[in-house]
Amino acid sequence: MDGSIFIEQDPFAPITYIYKISEILYHQKSDYQDIQVLKNDYFGKMLVLDNVIQLTEKDEFFYHEMLAHVAMHAHENPQTVLIIGGGDGGTLREVLKHKSVKQADLIDIDGKVIEVSKQFFPSLSCSFSDKRANVMPMDGAKHIRETKTRYDIVIIDSTDPVGPAKSLCTDEFYAGVKNVLNDTGIFVEQTESIHFHRDFIVEIQEKWRKLFNIVNLFYVPLATYAGNWWTFSIASKKYQVTRPNRKKEIDTRFYDEQVHVNSFVTDAIYQKLMTNKLDW
Amino acid sequence: MDGSIFIEQDPFAPITYIYKISEILYHQKSDYQDIQVLKNDYFGKMLVLDNVIQLTEKDEFFYHEMLAHVAMHAHENPQTVLIIGGGDGGTLREVLKHKSVKQADLIDIDGKVIEVSKQFFPSLSCSFSDKRANVMPMDGAKHIRETKTRYDIVIIDSTDPVGPAKSLCTDEFYAGVKNVLNDTGIFVEQTESIHFHRDFIVEIQEKWRKLFNIVNLFYVPLATYAGNWWTFSIASKKYQVTRPNRKKEIDTRFYDEQVHVNSFVTDAIYQKLMTNKLDW
Repeated sequence: MDGSIFIEQDPFAPITYIYKISEILYHQKSDYQDIQVLKNDYFGKMLVLDNVIQLTEKDEFFYHEMLAHVAMHAHENPQTVLIIGGGDGGTLREVLKHKSVKQADLIDIDGKVIEVSKQFFPSLSCSFSDKRANVMPMDGAKHIRETKTRYDIVIIDSTDPVGPAKSLCTDEFYAGVKNVLNDTGIFVEQTESIHFHRDFIVEIQEKWRKLFNIVNLFYVPLATYAGNWWTFSIASKKYQVTRPNRKKEIDTRFYDEQVHVNSFVTDAIYQKLMTNKLDW
Repeated sequence: MDGSIFIEQDPFAPITYIYKISEILYHQKSDYQDIQVLKNDYFGKMLVLDNVIQLTEKDEFFYHEMLAHVAMHAHENPQTVLIIGGGDGGTLREVLKHKSVKQADLIDIDGKVIEVSKQFFPSLSCSFSDKRANVMPMDGAKHIRETKTRYDIVIIDSTDPVGPAKSLCTDEFYAGVKNVLNDTGIFVEQTESIHFHRDFIVEIQEKWRKLFNIVNLFYVPLATYAGNWWTFSIASKKYQVTRPNRKKEIDTRFYDEQVHVNSFVTDAIYQKLMTNKLDW
């Protein structure tokens, strides 16, 4: 293979992924992680944290739309939204498409990621300047413990559950999330691939089922995340979540009502997953 | 990376996939293609034709169940089935689960693949000895031109549309498929990834729409096929196909009624795909 390559080896993945790189636009270590911006002719600019691709310009919308809009459309009137992680701004961009939103707090522990996104990913960081957005570089777990705000939607848009995102997977943290949610609140988090990271998904679902009445799992196929069949865990205090509870009034490239419904794992798979009976 | 590796570079894929190989069990050239059986600790034995993974023991059932059972359940009473390609036997195994089937013809141009499957993949080739199965190593296009049998279901389970599978993508061949289908016949073919092989999908869909009233597209996420979001094109003379037309009475590991319904691409995506308006 000619020229530069980027080799991605997720520790849980039995496949190694290689991308040709036409340009290394940025490479620095922050206080929390190694940050690279690489360019690939097909995927465009790619944000890489600790050697794992976080997003590419080409396909980031699948992930960000699904992470934001399933929860946002399951709520009848989401006004206050908290995003933990997501320093690239893609999730914030999707959340702020909703006119009902009055306040969107984005808390990423790594201010460097926010700066890098402003510099290299204008199509993602475009919403940082929105009047409704509060972008705060700080520890999400600390914010959950200390904030007086009550949220309609909490979104965890974190890196893999190692490194800086580790403190976001504890029982204590999730109890805190429940506490900052309004009585109609909905909670959503990216929970890795159903092929290669199944133990993690089950762990999260079990933790949430102790706290919330309604817990479910949906997914989107993504070519640039190891395992590809990417899941999102969702928990809700009041609203059913497997169908939208209001009409879509925003522009999207992938998400729509039919996608929302079809993206939930089937009852049979969910039952088998949670009882360790999936034979794959 | 220690030890042997297998590098998969689909010519249309901007990602190169690498698998660790613990054992090379078989490597020979047939009259038609290069055939390897490789072993990976996670995926088990893998069948590789012309350097492209065709199946792994771990995840082949996703592909074979979806290729067979969506079409088989859209038909009320499938009795005669033709499989072109599929020399490994996985599709035949799924088809023969249906008690309604009286005759299943498997036509693979490469008899060596059939032999290799018998030797290395007993969990796939197990149905070759079923009384209802006729396994014939010959050219599928020739069979379509010459057979007097009329089929309820025709399944194309081919390699990528280069090499030996090329003659299976012509207008003439598809007109022949229509001709050998009964008035209630259903036709299904694997049509590559919606991420990386979109031109191919559109080409097939357009060809089929000239011949069949009902044409649609469904998919399954697969970790071991380049692009992962793997599609199947389906055409039908009479039955609607987006929902099962009869109850599932067979054992499956993934396919069920809910999977059937959810696996079809949404109307919005289908319309955009066919009018070249997908912006991804």
